[in-house]
Amino acid sequence: MAQRPKLYLAGPDVFLPNAAEIGHRKKELCESFGFEGLYPLDNETMKGFSDERRDAFIYRANIAMIHDADAGIVNLTPFRGVSADVGTAFELGLLTGLNRPVFAYSNDVESLLERTKRNGMATYDTATSSWRDPHGLLIEDFGNADTLMLTEALTAQGGALMRIDAQGRLDDLAGFTACLEEAKKYFEA
Amino acid sequence: MAQRPKLYLAGPDVFLPNAAEIGHRKKELCESFGFEGLYPLDNETMKGFSDERRDAFIYRANIAMIHDADAGIVNLTPFRGVSADVGTAFELGLLTGLNRPVFAYSNDVESLLERTKRNGMATYDTATSSWRDPHGLLIEDFGNADTLMLTEALTAQGGALMRIDAQGRLDDLAGFTACLEEAKKYFEA
Repeated sequence: MAQRPKLYLAGPDVFLPNAAEIGHRKKELCESFGFEGLYPLDNETMKGFSDERRDAFIYRANIAMIHDADAGIVNLTPFRGVSADVGTAFELGLLTGLNRPVFAYSNDVESLLERTKRNGMATYDTATSSWRDPHGLLIEDFGNADTLMLTEALTAQGGALMRIDAQGRLDDLAGFTACLEEAKKYFEA
Repeated sequence: MAQRPKLYLAGPDVFLPNAAEIGHRKKELCESFGFEGLYPLDNETMKGFSDERRDAFIYRANIAMIHDADAGIVNLTPFRGVSADVGTAFELGLLTGLNRPVFAYSNDVESLLERTKRNGMATYDTATSSWRDPHGLLIEDFGNADTLMLTEALTAQGGALMRIDAQGRLDDLAGFTACLEEAKKYFEA
């Protein structure tokens, strides 16, 4: 029997109070689709280790898993603000640079602009015909879920960022499961 | 004479009202250090184009510049919240995946935890001996300027994220200039 493809499971899930449980459930879902899930190391897992250079250890462990993976599933749900988690965005970039197919979801259906408006941070500037935040910084208005560098990374692969109506809950797994279905089609093709 | 090394200039500077001027100044600074600066396309530059798939066009243009670059200088100053711009984080990941040396700065000296505390978003949880945001999500406590996936990407190269005392101003160029000095040393070695 051929070896199961390995999927790196990127996302801010590692910061949840029940990170280990979510990781376990994600890995079980991967198994049920015929994949091996590689879940990033989190701070909690590392509590027993010395504080010194624990960050470097976690980084190296995650990078090794990303290099080992055949593809990635990326959770781009907004995190502490209107955009995705920066660590997850970094990992999406790394996977893209390594030519790994990526399947991605966000548990929020709003566009970046809608979300920024709802947070009271968007004003229309008639002089430049564009939306600006309180610092005068441009807010992208393409209808995308997040900044174009993230969403177009998926479009450029022939995919798309899946937008799930789950009110931004980080631990909802409907989008993750939909990504597994896409990954299964990809590896069976 | 050898060709000048090309540097991709990543950062949320493209969202500033004076993005074109900042890009011009950054490219001039690159010239003065013997580099060619590649400044990402911004929305403003593209105003004349059709809205349809303008995001895809900008993405492809930026990706082509990143592939063409010999190294990157990355502005990781906090953007609309406590962390860096997600598009910039993606580009740092892509540069890392492509094995390009990266020099990075943040125009904010605070650590991620200090910044999150100052924004009133951090509470100490005695049960888990860790700092948590209002959603119970873990806040990293390594003293780093941002999440470890960004800062350790630079440490793993033998570098470091430069932290500049410029009150988070996106357009301050002291850190950018310090990165150019590091890049010059790197390419002369």
